[in-house]
Amino acid sequence: MRSRKPSCVVLGGGGFLGLNLCRYLESKGYRVRAFGRRCLFPEALGDVPWFAGDAADPGALAAAIESSEVAVHLIGTTTKYSSMDSSWHDDVGNALRCFDVGHKLGVKRIVFASSGGAIYGAPTQMPIPETAPTEPFAPYGISKLAIEKYLAVYRRFHGIDYRILRIANVFGPFQVPKSDHGVIATFVSRALRDQALEIWGDGSIVRDYIFVDDVCAAIEFAINDDSDQRVFNIGSGQGRTLTDIVGSIERLLDRKLKIDRIEGRIGDVPASVLATDKASAVLGWNSSTPFEVGLRRTFDWWESTNGQHKPAAAAYSDDG
Amino acid sequence: MRSRKPSCVVLGGGGFLGLNLCRYLESKGYRVRAFGRRCLFPEALGDVPWFAGDAADPGALAAAIESSEVAVHLIGTTTKYSSMDSSWHDDVGNALRCFDVGHKLGVKRIVFASSGGAIYGAPTQMPIPETAPTEPFAPYGISKLAIEKYLAVYRRFHGIDYRILRIANVFGPFQVPKSDHGVIATFVSRALRDQALEIWGDGSIVRDYIFVDDVCAAIEFAINDDSDQRVFNIGSGQGRTLTDIVGSIERLLDRKLKIDRIEGRIGDVPASVLATDKASAVLGWNSSTPFEVGLRRTFDWWESTNGQHKPAAAAYSDDG
Repeated sequence: MRSRKPSCVVLGGGGFLGLNLCRYLESKGYRVRAFGRRCLFPEALGDVPWFAGDAADPGALAAAIESSEVAVHLIGTTTKYSSMDSSWHDDVGNALRCFDVGHKLGVKRIVFASSGGAIYGAPTQMPIPETAPTEPFAPYGISKLAIEKYLAVYRRFHGIDYRILRIANVFGPFQVPKSDHGVIATFVSRALRDQALEIWGDGSIVRDYIFVDDVCAAIEFAINDDSDQRVFNIGSGQGRTLTDIVGSIERLLDRKLKIDRIEGRIGDVPASVLATDKASAVLGWNSSTPFEVGLRRTFDWWESTNGQHKPAAAAYSDDG
Repeated sequence: MRSRKPSCVVLGGGGFLGLNLCRYLESKGYRVRAFGRRCLFPEALGDVPWFAGDAADPGALAAAIESSEVAVHLIGTTTKYSSMDSSWHDDVGNALRCFDVGHKLGVKRIVFASSGGAIYGAPTQMPIPETAPTEPFAPYGISKLAIEKYLAVYRRFHGIDYRILRIANVFGPFQVPKSDHGVIATFVSRALRDQALEIWGDGSIVRDYIFVDDVCAAIEFAINDDSDQRVFNIGSGQGRTLTDIVGSIERLLDRKLKIDRIEGRIGDVPASVLATDKASAVLGWNSSTPFEVGLRRTFDWWESTNGQHKPAAAAYSDDG
């Protein structure tokens, strides 16, 4: 771990993970800047400078990245089952543009939020180690994989270092449900309104849910890591079914929830839990927030928003 | 092996491998169509119908693909070290467009020419099996990898089957040297003109060179294969240094060649030889043309062209 704190820019700093990360790094004394198309909760950024812009615009990127030593790349399509459209092109192209601008401006390291849920495909072992085959089930995972491979090429060509975090299903404050991801945000927001929770298939799909503060901590380790390792799984190491989550919410609220069962969906991996031994051994990071504690904090945040965010119509099985 | 010969369209049928493949398949009694932006040697296509068009144009693609059962996808940037430009985007986007149009028109199978030289990166074992890690050294290999992954997703979403051939360094008739690939075409054409051969580094770089007829035979097996396997290395299984190749040419011409040594190049894997046991066991394919025989045929073809193709200024170490 370096003794001095490097200056950081969070690309995608206005989204769920980005907002949490900016707040986290600032609270730890980092100089942080946030860049993105829009900020979900501008007031939540506090004193973190906000640079509005599109990753397709090198000038806007340069204004945000300028003088930063580390760029944390969180920009990406959040719609994961967008089938065969061109959004994956945008994701990869935007990432390359960020890396190009960062390289030109002297960024020393890129920390990339990859997807532990989408990059492996059907697991051949569980929990899934970083060495497992990468056979994505959907275009979202392919774009993450391509960006990972590009980081290695950038390092070879340009000497810019990187760390890749393959992150499980993150949940927590500032996560707003969208049509096809964020199952916990969706469930919590609907439960609070006494609306039925929609569950795909039989509810037995297993995912690895990790509280956002733990992910922010992992990113801080990745910013400062001076090992020779570059790819790390970041998850809770525990699998939970959708039925488990409903049970946890029911215990928290001390009442039964309404459930609508709807048909399963193509492209779902039945189970995905990440092995995090490597992050523990190399980065010294471990997930530390119990699921029920994270769920409680998520509830508290939703209650504090006073219903200003509409819950999505349907929950998905979710992929990190 | 199916008893009936499926109708085929060769996408990229006007290039080096494409021309050879069209001629090969036609000679075997397949109904073949060729599609591409331009045909290197129009007369070489004989009776194979030529559909001129750009893969960016779905209408042109549809006209060529219409009524074909198998599409052989050979379209791709031939410039492999084009650093961080957008050509890889084109390659992946063009491939997806071909798959989309093929799917809509009822194509049953796609045979994709991937790269055995570019997709693995630094080998961890030699010869390289299909199960080796895929860590491309350059964008060219990343686009090949992304297309491979997309084929699996297409099969999941749309049921269209595929075979991937990770092909080593192909050489033979109709290969015209370009600025950065085709070392044998470059050496042969320059030797015939008594021009110096440029060798990157110390000439010790090892590649797996395979004669084009053997690759065409492998593609025919892939067109008809009904195993449950989908990814195959296609190579000679033998490694040759640039110095070896110069020696072979000198023996063939019975004279010493002029050599210019120039600096090595970033992005070169020191050695790459493919393991082809799987293609042998599953497809029943083996490379059968001895290197010296392929080299002789390449010479004969160059002599028959009467100097109509200019040799490139420099040779590269080459990647398949």
